[in-house]
Amino acid sequence: MTRYGAQFGPDITFLGVDPVDLDDAEALAGADVVILGAPWDGGTSHRPGTRFGPQSIRGTDYLPHDGSRPHLALRVDGLQDLRVLDAGDVEMPPGEQEVARQNLEEAVHAVASRGAIPLVLGGDHSITLPDATGVARHLGFGRVSMIHFDAHADTGDIEFGSLYGHGQPMRRLIESGALRGDRFLQMGLRGYWPGPETLGWMAEQRMRSYEMTEIGKRGLDDCLDEAFEIALDDCDAVFLSVDIDVCDPGHAPGTGTPEPGGLSARALLDAVRRICRELPVAGIDVVEVSPPYDHAEITAFLANRVCLEALSGLAARRRGIDHDPAGPLLEGR
Amino acid sequence: MTRYGAQFGPDITFLGVDPVDLDDAEALAGADVVILGAPWDGGTSHRPGTRFGPQSIRGTDYLPHDGSRPHLALRVDGLQDLRVLDAGDVEMPPGEQEVARQNLEEAVHAVASRGAIPLVLGGDHSITLPDATGVARHLGFGRVSMIHFDAHADTGDIEFGSLYGHGQPMRRLIESGALRGDRFLQMGLRGYWPGPETLGWMAEQRMRSYEMTEIGKRGLDDCLDEAFEIALDDCDAVFLSVDIDVCDPGHAPGTGTPEPGGLSARALLDAVRRICRELPVAGIDVVEVSPPYDHAEITAFLANRVCLEALSGLAARRRGIDHDPAGPLLEGR
Amino acid sequence: MTRYGAQFGPDITFLGVDPVDLDDAEALAGADVVILGAPWDGGTSHRPGTRFGPQSIRGTDYLPHDGSRPHLALRVDGLQDLRVLDAGDVEMPPGEQEVARQNLEEAVHAVASRGAIPLVLGGDHSITLPDATGVARHLGFGRVSMIHFDAHADTGDIEFGSLYGHGQPMRRLIESGALRGDRFLQMGLRGYWPGPETLGWMAEQRMRSYEMTEIGKRGLDDCLDEAFEIALDDCDAVFLSVDIDVCDPGHAPGTGTPEPGGLSARALLDAVRRICRELPVAGIDVVEVSPPYDHAEITAFLANRVCLEALSGLAARRRGIDHDPAGPLLEGR
Amino acid sequence: MTRYGAQFGPDITFLGVDPVDLDDAEALAGADVVILGAPWDGGTSHRPGTRFGPQSIRGTDYLPHDGSRPHLALRVDGLQDLRVLDAGDVEMPPGEQEVARQNLEEAVHAVASRGAIPLVLGGDHSITLPDATGVARHLGFGRVSMIHFDAHADTGDIEFGSLYGHGQPMRRLIESGALRGDRFLQMGLRGYWPGPETLGWMAEQRMRSYEMTEIGKRGLDDCLDEAFEIALDDCDAVFLSVDIDVCDPGHAPGTGTPEPGGLSARALLDAVRRICRELPVAGIDVVEVSPPYDHAEITAFLANRVCLEALSGLAARRRGIDHDPAGPLLEGR
Amino acid sequence: MTRYGAQFGPDITFLGVDPVDLDDAEALAGADVVILGAPWDGGTSHRPGTRFGPQSIRGTDYLPHDGSRPHLALRVDGLQDLRVLDAGDVEMPPGEQEVARQNLEEAVHAVASRGAIPLVLGGDHSITLPDATGVARHLGFGRVSMIHFDAHADTGDIEFGSLYGHGQPMRRLIESGALRGDRFLQMGLRGYWPGPETLGWMAEQRMRSYEMTEIGKRGLDDCLDEAFEIALDDCDAVFLSVDIDVCDPGHAPGTGTPEPGGLSARALLDAVRRICRELPVAGIDVVEVSPPYDHAEITAFLANRVCLEALSGLAARRRGIDHDPAGPLLEGR
Amino acid sequence: MTRYGAQFGPDITFLGVDPVDLDDAEALAGADVVILGAPWDGGTSHRPGTRFGPQSIRGTDYLPHDGSRPHLALRVDGLQDLRVLDAGDVEMPPGEQEVARQNLEEAVHAVASRGAIPLVLGGDHSITLPDATGVARHLGFGRVSMIHFDAHADTGDIEFGSLYGHGQPMRRLIESGALRGDRFLQMGLRGYWPGPETLGWMAEQRMRSYEMTEIGKRGLDDCLDEAFEIALDDCDAVFLSVDIDVCDPGHAPGTGTPEPGGLSARALLDAVRRICRELPVAGIDVVEVSPPYDHAEITAFLANRVCLEALSGLAARRRGIDHDPAGPLLEGR
Repeated sequence: MTRYGAQFGPDITFLGVDPVDLDDAEALAGADVVILGAPWDGGTSHRPGTRFGPQSIRGTDYLPHDGSRPHLALRVDGLQDLRVLDAGDVEMPPGEQEVARQNLEEAVHAVASRGAIPLVLGGDHSITLPDATGVARHLGFGRVSMIHFDAHADTGDIEFGSLYGHGQPMRRLIESGALRGDRFLQMGLRGYWPGPETLGWMAEQRMRSYEMTEIGKRGLDDCLDEAFEIALDDCDAVFLSVDIDVCDPGHAPGTGTPEPGGLSARALLDAVRRICRELPVAGIDVVEVSPPYDHAEITAFLANRVCLEALSGLAARRRGIDHDPAGPLLEGR
Repeated sequence: MTRYGAQFGPDITFLGVDPVDLDDAEALAGADVVILGAPWDGGTSHRPGTRFGPQSIRGTDYLPHDGSRPHLALRVDGLQDLRVLDAGDVEMPPGEQEVARQNLEEAVHAVASRGAIPLVLGGDHSITLPDATGVARHLGFGRVSMIHFDAHADTGDIEFGSLYGHGQPMRRLIESGALRGDRFLQMGLRGYWPGPETLGWMAEQRMRSYEMTEIGKRGLDDCLDEAFEIALDDCDAVFLSVDIDVCDPGHAPGTGTPEPGGLSARALLDAVRRICRELPVAGIDVVEVSPPYDHAEITAFLANRVCLEALSGLAARRRGIDHDPAGPLLEGR
Repeated sequence: MTRYGAQFGPDITFLGVDPVDLDDAEALAGADVVILGAPWDGGTSHRPGTRFGPQSIRGTDYLPHDGSRPHLALRVDGLQDLRVLDAGDVEMPPGEQEVARQNLEEAVHAVASRGAIPLVLGGDHSITLPDATGVARHLGFGRVSMIHFDAHADTGDIEFGSLYGHGQPMRRLIESGALRGDRFLQMGLRGYWPGPETLGWMAEQRMRSYEMTEIGKRGLDDCLDEAFEIALDDCDAVFLSVDIDVCDPGHAPGTGTPEPGGLSARALLDAVRRICRELPVAGIDVVEVSPPYDHAEITAFLANRVCLEALSGLAARRRGIDHDPAGPLLEGR
Repeated sequence: MTRYGAQFGPDITFLGVDPVDLDDAEALAGADVVILGAPWDGGTSHRPGTRFGPQSIRGTDYLPHDGSRPHLALRVDGLQDLRVLDAGDVEMPPGEQEVARQNLEEAVHAVASRGAIPLVLGGDHSITLPDATGVARHLGFGRVSMIHFDAHADTGDIEFGSLYGHGQPMRRLIESGALRGDRFLQMGLRGYWPGPETLGWMAEQRMRSYEMTEIGKRGLDDCLDEAFEIALDDCDAVFLSVDIDVCDPGHAPGTGTPEPGGLSARALLDAVRRICRELPVAGIDVVEVSPPYDHAEITAFLANRVCLEALSGLAARRRGIDHDPAGPLLEGR
Repeated sequence: MTRYGAQFGPDITFLGVDPVDLDDAEALAGADVVILGAPWDGGTSHRPGTRFGPQSIRGTDYLPHDGSRPHLALRVDGLQDLRVLDAGDVEMPPGEQEVARQNLEEAVHAVASRGAIPLVLGGDHSITLPDATGVARHLGFGRVSMIHFDAHADTGDIEFGSLYGHGQPMRRLIESGALRGDRFLQMGLRGYWPGPETLGWMAEQRMRSYEMTEIGKRGLDDCLDEAFEIALDDCDAVFLSVDIDVCDPGHAPGTGTPEPGGLSARALLDAVRRICRELPVAGIDVVEVSPPYDHAEITAFLANRVCLEALSGLAARRRGIDHDPAGPLLEGR
Repeated sequence: MTRYGAQFGPDITFLGVDPVDLDDAEALAGADVVILGAPWDGGTSHRPGTRFGPQSIRGTDYLPHDGSRPHLALRVDGLQDLRVLDAGDVEMPPGEQEVARQNLEEAVHAVASRGAIPLVLGGDHSITLPDATGVARHLGFGRVSMIHFDAHADTGDIEFGSLYGHGQPMRRLIESGALRGDRFLQMGLRGYWPGPETLGWMAEQRMRSYEMTEIGKRGLDDCLDEAFEIALDDCDAVFLSVDIDVCDPGHAPGTGTPEPGGLSARALLDAVRRICRELPVAGIDVVEVSPPYDHAEITAFLANRVCLEALSGLAARRRGIDHDPAGPLLEGR
């Protein structure tokens, strides 16, 4: 499980943070967050390209790649106030689904078991099965709740004869016991999938899925308040999974299965910041960024900022920073 | 008036629903909705390309083209709970405006007169003249109100010596008596057209036009409530015409005359759903999708979803489904 | 300082308004607004291309280039009710920063000193240093307040050994005394720049910077109300500087340093309209439109409309037009 | 027939040459070449967009729009050694085919009858019917031969019930007697259209069509030598019609009906230069440039250069310049 | 093995030819050519997207989808003079490599064993292993020679632990005995892969690989003459495999691993035509078309024409048509 | 002059070769070739973007970034048989022309003076002034001949008041005496610039410029033969400067000043290979790659391959490899 390096393109780290080898126990010991690339689009049912997601999320910015990002509003530096390391891409050979999934689960578990938070850059959403399993293996099956941003429930059963496409990871996670269905919180669902049978199964699991109609009527913050309460009820930690297609295609065109009518970029960034500041997050993934369908890199920028908001939120939580969202940016006025 | 088939590209149906020939009286008899393609950009004043709108609206989706789309929020299937058929493209030879308009009006009338709702996929907005006329011929001139989503009033008089461009259909409809000016409801107008003379004419007709400033201040739902009341006052049915440019260019770049500052995709989808659930809709068109200017197909996706929200709303109305927009998606939580 | 004409492409004027030569004193005498192109991207730290901004802002529209734009909501014509002239591009030779800056400052001053409002089409944001200085030289250093829409504070100190990049103009303006720090109002900041030291400097200057979190919580109109009060306190006029990247990249992808999570196009247009209607605006620039990164011209359309909203607001102010934003568009309903 | 100005976008002239009004007899008297825009895509059978061809051909260049283009190889300046004027766009209202065709024919005839060479910027290929007819009306029906670069023969009969699409102009020209079939020389045909019947008709007319297979085997210069001989046999002048799709889609992607396997850009430019140097050219059109399908403007650049090679060749012919294509560029080596 | 229909998008046939079900023995009996889609990019080492190749090759044309394509030069109609049927896409579930390969091999064998020529639309190049194996199983292992157009040798050994990527099919075919190494003819290789070891293996197999340098010096026709002789030596039939990346990226940008310096589109089309006219072709595939990286559909157009040239050549061979490539298109001149 | 690292984006090396610091004398001692990035577009007269050239040339490939590229035809490995190091980007602050030029000249001189060949990745063509000067300072003014591939002569005098734009470096080099005019060999010129005065100056310098017409008639190899003879006459070494716009825009769209009618990619690659194999090359630059105007990265791929052909040619020359371009790739056939 040595550092794999570059599967697609040059070997770079997230905005210039230090690299790390997963076999380097000492280096991992001091890490707060370890970034992993999951360059995998083998589970994609439609437009592929998420294999290039990790490199584009790591590298898309107009600021220097210097391992520092002071957060304007929170006044923390997510890359400096935390020890963030980048372990490179996990080896996920195209077409070798079983191997790929196991490699990723092992890598995530390695990070989690050393006390660091894995931040996995996808890749299609099928990677959340190994991501969340890897964390749950360390913290205990059933002890981690899930907050899941997505246009799609991803609770499908067998598709094309396969159990492991990007429409199914959430079902697998609940079936395996890694996560509890009644601590599974979905934000942003919409559209025309899945059908009644799957929705029935979801209800049986007592999942709590916030469709866009409800979010639109109640407001996202109100929904989050409720969700946070559920998430913390008899669970020790939270896994945050962000499918970039939770945003409207106008804000995130570079994705495989765009579903009109989603969140604005602003709403997603605020929500991710809140979650990481207010909840005990133990693992994160950001998935479904497909560069071939992006333009002017706006989807890659958004995913990069989702990571930065998460890291900034984590840093603010660690440092106990208080922040009044309605207050002025600068002191003295 | 046999099935024309494919004017631009292969002969496909909307998401795989069954095809129908307009001459097949028996088949039409059982139809609830009949889809018609109007591959016409001969009325376009600026960027062309809407001739490819019907094929892109029919075919743009990441789900299987299997003639089924269970609606997540409403719990209906717009393609299964209704009998939806696709009659293919109407023959609208490029450059043959008169012929094209008549062919389309006949096709729409054929559908309406057999009791089905025509859903016409444009094409530029000039097609609404034959679309709404075809419906009014069946239900009675002056008996159908209009709800019209658009950045532009489309009430221009002669342009370039022509009466039939895409900036004029609404004037023609009122002048002919097909629709009443005082039952004409426009949502989303903005920008710098038309000028005072035309606005004066519109006021004389007692049209009710909601400019974006008003919508922004009052909220779209409040405006819709008011509009619904007008629409139902001494009219038997509603025609719904959706110009995709009512949305902001960030959500719908693939259109001919993009006007910044429009609705979000979410707002449009919600409004279309409400209209089809709450009003007696007798005809629909979705226009001004121009694939050459689209990217990552996000405008085509949006138009496809406008159709699906309309169909789902119709299905919910037929089946008498009740739906609390602020309620949870799944039972039991 | 004769009319330079066309640096990049054909010599066109903004939507067909009359051209003017800055040496033509008589012509300038009667002008209300003079448009200047600043085809400069020599201060850009990342994605270039704003040199093509002026031509794209001038020429991007689907309506005739006929020097008339009746505003639907305000019922004024910003190009007719005001005398708007276009002086062409200022000569700003690529690579000749010092010369370029001086040429632009002189041109702006020439316009301002003849009593007209300069409307400068950028170019990158480094042009605001000469733009606002040129106006302040006429109205008095410290007599003009600034309302600045941007994702970035642009208050950086030396970068790459240069004082004059697009991340620094606001600091230079305050340091020179042209503008007062405590009358400097920034709307829309967000992201991860600048760091604590620069924020400290900004606080010392008593700048008032509205980060997106605050805007989101309080609402933009509420923030503007407060800002207007500050702007008018012991100042005679307002300079309005609009960096198109204040909008979300989904609404304005064609820019050099896109920062997710910004304003919607609608919000920006409304704010610009309000500012020009309610405040004594003495100078305007619209910057950071980068056509190579645009698609379907949506960013150029937006910048063109920012200009038109500004001009329409100015015209409404001149003509004393009253406007109820919640009222209906047409009389009689 | 006054100068129409700008149908789509600002009113610019070809690379900055002087404008002219077709009613200005005096100005026309001294002209060698008059440029006309034909912003028409009403005859297009598939991808539209050629309405924007004239403006993109006029304006696409990286050199100043200063009305001068010294030709490197020929040592002439096509814009200075000839008196080249630009009469703007002919009024061709979208959808008004009959009017459009007549307006264009009149404009071309006006130019030709005053002794100047019309250079018409398309527009789709249907414009060649009025273009060549306008010239033939002046020089005599049957007195002008045609050299026609194209992937397609454009000799179709009725299509979609219309006689005037872009696949038919060459048949109409021969049928009307304007041009002789046996002086009709086509270069670059290929693909799968038209069928045997039309080919039979073409053979009956004794057309000479060089398909790409023949050109590939014999070489383009050899074919041109033969064609020139036919063109000059009992005819007084030559009309040159260049459909940009004669080039391979790799060199000219921005066109409506791209047919792989065409000429290189280099080959086309050389051929156009030869024709205008060696033959008595009396009229030219350059058609089927469709900007919405172009990228990096490479098709517009190519069409602009086709015009410049034509103008340079005409200038060299006028001035009797001798040129050894195998000789060195600079004297003395 | 019933007709699978549409894996990605609507169920269309190649340019409108009749559909067929592979289980319909009677229908297959009369077929000359059966088209199969192989929507697979599971073997792609870099840019994915070839899963959308079959639908784009089938549907990309500006002519009607009417099942007829008269060849201009050869005077045959490849879709009419032959009985061409389209069996739809083979079921190749993403991620299910083994299943996918077997399904494709079975489908190809089903076609070949009924005496028809399979024409497989890829998909990445890994599909050639099942394609050629399916044919060889019918005609005999070692009895079919291969003509392989490609920038890459595709003779790699294990990659990423997998035997079945798109860089390896040719090795697998030779190792299995399906094809003979000394009847393996590669045209168009170039670049920097594979290394010496693999080249050594290729030499041992006595493969004949024409690198672009040799083709450039000798001419493609000369190389083909030599290759044809080898191909026919003690073999009964030929399999033709065309990787679209054999063409220069300027002519075929929409592909996964573009290698500059390739053939022109014209050269490839001529070569494919010659092969199908002059050799006993028993199977064909056209691979590596990746629509997400295409623009203006030029790569899809090229691949569509590769199919048409092949079909036209086959038809000419069947009908014994003689054709002088240097002769005129039309009779009588 | 320490390693600058990453000006625009992550710090990567050319295809994974080892990095080097220019201050590390020991490391440089053993280098054969040192790669330098010149991320500069401050001299660009039109479309900018070449600042992103170095990173795109370094990183654009589908093969692993493993520092090895075995050349198929030459059987050398340009990255392994030579010691190739990458010194990163030279510090060239946007807008600081003088500083930028000096930094680059020093860096190039540092490489040359230690006996290695600098390979500079542009950047616009203004960088060739410091590039060739840096080499000439080491080998002696007037001792290095120039082979210059370009559509443009780049011998302009003052432009926009500046001496140092990308249209002037060649004049500056001759004027300074760094290079001899009569050992200046230009390949691929075409178009409409410069005018007679500049051409006169070029002739006076006894430059030898091969315009495309001459190359087309004589063949590129014949021209190169002649050029090689001149280059070696009383000079000790050759500088090779490749402006990617020497290729046709169809092959290299991603550039600032595309000029139709250029070389094919194949022709350029062959020529570069020959030059580096047959001549004593002492310095190389590859310029004018502008990623914002590229699509599917085809221009970046081409520039990457220009570098690899150069390196492979250098390696073959070092190792004395003989190569018959008309011979077979594999032994034994």
